[in-house]
Amino acid sequence: MGQYNAPLRDMHFVLHELLDVTSELKALPAHADIDTDTINQILEEGAKFTSKVLFPLNHIGDVEGCRLNSDTHEVTTPTGFKEAYRQFVEAGWPALTCDPEYGGQGLPIVVYNPLAEMLNSSNQAWYMYPGLSHGAYECLHEHGTPEQKSMYLPKLVSGQWTGTMCLTEPHCGTDLGLLRSKAEPQADGSYKITGGKIFISAGEHDMAENIVHLVLARLPDAPAGTKGISLFLVPKFIPNADGSLGARNAITCGALEEKMGIHGNATCQMNLDDASGWLIGQPNKGLNAMFVMMNAARLGVGMQSLGLTEVAFQNALAYAKERLQMRSLSGPKAPDKPADPIIVHPDVRRMLLTAKAYAEGGRAFSSFVALQIDRELNHPDEEVRKDAADLVTLLTPIIKAFMTDNGWIATSEAMQVHGGMGFIRETGMEQYVRDARINMIYEGTNTIQSLDLLGRKILMDNGAKLKKFGALVQAFVEENGTDEAMNEFVTPLADIGDKVSKLTMEIGMKAFQNQDEVGAAAVPYLRVVGHLVYSYFFARMAKIALAKQDSGDTFYKAKLATARFYFARLLPETAMLIRQARSGAKPLLDLEAELF
Amino acid sequence: MGQYNAPLRDMHFVLHELLDVTSELKALPAHADIDTDTINQILEEGAKFTSKVLFPLNHIGDVEGCRLNSDTHEVTTPTGFKEAYRQFVEAGWPALTCDPEYGGQGLPIVVYNPLAEMLNSSNQAWYMYPGLSHGAYECLHEHGTPEQKSMYLPKLVSGQWTGTMCLTEPHCGTDLGLLRSKAEPQADGSYKITGGKIFISAGEHDMAENIVHLVLARLPDAPAGTKGISLFLVPKFIPNADGSLGARNAITCGALEEKMGIHGNATCQMNLDDASGWLIGQPNKGLNAMFVMMNAARLGVGMQSLGLTEVAFQNALAYAKERLQMRSLSGPKAPDKPADPIIVHPDVRRMLLTAKAYAEGGRAFSSFVALQIDRELNHPDEEVRKDAADLVTLLTPIIKAFMTDNGWIATSEAMQVHGGMGFIRETGMEQYVRDARINMIYEGTNTIQSLDLLGRKILMDNGAKLKKFGALVQAFVEENGTDEAMNEFVTPLADIGDKVSKLTMEIGMKAFQNQDEVGAAAVPYLRVVGHLVYSYFFARMAKIALAKQDSGDTFYKAKLATARFYFARLLPETAMLIRQARSGAKPLLDLEAELF
Repeated sequence: MGQYNAPLRDMHFVLHELLDVTSELKALPAHADIDTDTINQILEEGAKFTSKVLFPLNHIGDVEGCRLNSDTHEVTTPTGFKEAYRQFVEAGWPALTCDPEYGGQGLPIVVYNPLAEMLNSSNQAWYMYPGLSHGAYECLHEHGTPEQKSMYLPKLVSGQWTGTMCLTEPHCGTDLGLLRSKAEPQADGSYKITGGKIFISAGEHDMAENIVHLVLARLPDAPAGTKGISLFLVPKFIPNADGSLGARNAITCGALEEKMGIHGNATCQMNLDDASGWLIGQPNKGLNAMFVMMNAARLGVGMQSLGLTEVAFQNALAYAKERLQMRSLSGPKAPDKPADPIIVHPDVRRMLLTAKAYAEGGRAFSSFVALQIDRELNHPDEEVRKDAADLVTLLTPIIKAFMTDNGWIATSEAMQVHGGMGFIRETGMEQYVRDARINMIYEGTNTIQSLDLLGRKILMDNGAKLKKFGALVQAFVEENGTDEAMNEFVTPLADIGDKVSKLTMEIGMKAFQNQDEVGAAAVPYLRVVGHLVYSYFFARMAKIALAKQDSGDTFYKAKLATARFYFARLLPETAMLIRQARSGAKPLLDLEAELF
Repeated sequence: MGQYNAPLRDMHFVLHELLDVTSELKALPAHADIDTDTINQILEEGAKFTSKVLFPLNHIGDVEGCRLNSDTHEVTTPTGFKEAYRQFVEAGWPALTCDPEYGGQGLPIVVYNPLAEMLNSSNQAWYMYPGLSHGAYECLHEHGTPEQKSMYLPKLVSGQWTGTMCLTEPHCGTDLGLLRSKAEPQADGSYKITGGKIFISAGEHDMAENIVHLVLARLPDAPAGTKGISLFLVPKFIPNADGSLGARNAITCGALEEKMGIHGNATCQMNLDDASGWLIGQPNKGLNAMFVMMNAARLGVGMQSLGLTEVAFQNALAYAKERLQMRSLSGPKAPDKPADPIIVHPDVRRMLLTAKAYAEGGRAFSSFVALQIDRELNHPDEEVRKDAADLVTLLTPIIKAFMTDNGWIATSEAMQVHGGMGFIRETGMEQYVRDARINMIYEGTNTIQSLDLLGRKILMDNGAKLKKFGALVQAFVEENGTDEAMNEFVTPLADIGDKVSKLTMEIGMKAFQNQDEVGAAAVPYLRVVGHLVYSYFFARMAKIALAKQDSGDTFYKAKLATARFYFARLLPETAMLIRQARSGAKPLLDLEAELF
């Protein structure tokens, strides 16, 4: 069933050598005291838990799936899931980054980020149960009333209760403006909510005693469309004043979806039949409140694919070193064996290095964004907070879409390394591919992410946020432009930076004439910007590796080789993407729908 | 569960307008009499059978899979599979292209090609049972003794018996030189064969009364490696002299594989324990004989992905016209409805047109190759036969690898059009993706196809076969170069033709220094040549469509739009691929295996 070992060495490299997080965190009063040893100890504990407890349950979860008792509406999760959750809660993992006021440990997000990767590498379907709780926590933390916070947050922080987000209905996923669930105000200030929700991840399960649903619905007098949607807190069991469990609420799981992947997670159809709910935030401003949760979820989805990329890579690598098949075209490399290990073949290496580079690029990038979130939340200087927030806003759709597209590519390549064995369930490789597929869809399809990036985040403010990232690139190029050894990295980085500027301007001009030009260009455009981001991080990592390549630590040699591979083999995708983005809306829109 | 309607209009276009097959076939004495009506009638019958009988079994096959009785070693296929096979045999479909001497109908391959597409669109897993028989038929027809032919061919032709190819063993897939199964000569001229084979598609089932296994094994004195492999005929039941079933042979199914997809097909572990076998062809020349079957299978695998591409496209299109979500960025297109159908969105069209263009390109290309096979087999002029054979040899790995890569891309895009619904089993979209995945692996992975194309088919004869295809391109470019309306197609076609020539020469030069340069460039190189081929066929199709665009038949308008989409959005992949192919072996080979 394969293997998983948390890539601690590379995580240390990213946190300490690339981002120098302990120094950075010194500027944030809330995190000024954290030191390298503490960080590394946390990661080491996480590595143990994920590889020993969660990873062995990954295949079981895929094979068993979840079961619904249609009489009781109760869901049984796969063997071992509940017990692993108990251990997770006991060890205090859910509380790690939460507010100490509600029992959290108040650690920075950037320290949590590698843990999120490990949790997803070892068991994406399992981690979705606590993962979604965290989004509910954030949403309530920002928009809840003091009473809601004091009732719900401590239980979410401890993991005693979990959370969900209930948005989608059968006729509306992307287009929430169409949603129909209704909320009727009651005399006591609560609401009676009725409607049907679908695709509710972790909507019902046996791992925690209560589930806190955050539900979008319409008030009776609500305006049509997205401006008439409100957010409600709908607990599975209505808590008594002392926090103990009260009456069972009328929100139940009507069916589980049969899916391509993430079988271990319960994807529920939820029926609300006059369920009791309480308003979160302002009436008709539910989408604003939900966006807090959605942004957290989008970053989380990117991390799911990073996790899958890493574990798929590790298993493909092990297989490629072990499997003997054919001789190297340039002569036998293991003459004592009946054939060479397939890692000698250049195209096997291409597949392996694709996964490796996407894992290492995604790790650096996502940790950088996590650090920006810490700065956004905690830096004393408002301007620094604003800059950090702008970067997070800009980069969130890239984390979601670029990293999940890359995860699809990488898991598929890792499976291909296995030849026919990759298609067989017992190797576990095809599960990574199936699990990775949903990440391109949920929490806003990758098309939606691309429109968000190009239309909203970039064109709407004339590229101001993009320029903030561009300034980092520019500074790095200027700083290293005269270093001959860095030429091979700085030159393509500067080049892709220029190309992004030109492309952005060009699309912006065309969009003035026709908004469909945004829709036509958005998907390839996002990947171009993704490559600009990865080029920047690979150039920065290469700089460190160049300086230390003679240190005797072969890690740096490998890092340099991976960076060179990235620039030679992955960055060239931009040559295609830019042509596609520039080809415009006409070839897409010319044909009448009925002639397709 | 979706829908499938055979794309008869486009099939007619390809056969009659693009390839003008009835005229072409007049030059082949064996097929000189076939007329358009006959061809169209056959296609219409095929369309009925596949959409009405096979398509409804596709989802059932996926859900039920096959079951092995471990006592009797018998396999039960999914509900309805056996009955559908009975109808298939009764209607005479297996005999369609077979030799009349053995009961076949002697029809040309080019007429069968659209049927193969339909069979795969409607049910890839089902069609693999009779599909593999056809390869066994071809191999025996070419290499069998007169006695073997008269005993086995009529039963394979009628479909009374089916066939398999037993190559792979646990330690060798690609590298057949390592295989260990043994064949001991017996006094009566037969052999006793012992060994274990894996991944044997249709190795055991309940659809036909007997199964004819073609098995690779080693004679006692065989040289090591691929030069010591012989091919044996090993029937499940040893036929009596009158063709009736005799003793059960010692070749049994030990286990079925659990797979990512094609669940309806039995992927068997086969145990041979002193099984009786008979030599096919010369001792130690088994690979040569098997290659007849393997080439047929490779073309067949390309057709599997074409079939999946088409059916996935049809279902995505239906969904995109029906699903209402968001307004067009350029203003409402269906103001009477609560939202626009998603086909108004440019990126949804990009996904749909990607699948449509790959379906139409693959249909034209594969039918062209099928016609070349007919010419190779039946043209009276030896030089014409040789030219046709060279084209088939050159293009076979492109059919296998380019069409299956495209099938993976297209089915995934078609699934993505469905958003979250695409991930749910009941829409059937994710099955297409899972089924499509194996096609990139079996019958020689796509890496192996790429090495075959670049190393063996192109560099080994200094590009002579490639030049034969290049001459077709060149002639088309010269003929249409002064037609202004054709400019938009001829210019990029000529350009990609030049680029392929230069790239081939460049890699050839580098390969002189280091054979690993072939391995490093092969995969992107194959896709570049694939795009040259598709550019040629889209330019030819566009020419016909331009001439008839004012005919009132909107088919030509759609064809033109699809061709324009291809050149705008898909051909630009070559800008990436050429850079990748040129980047050479160094970035792949620099890192020692242990430092990965």
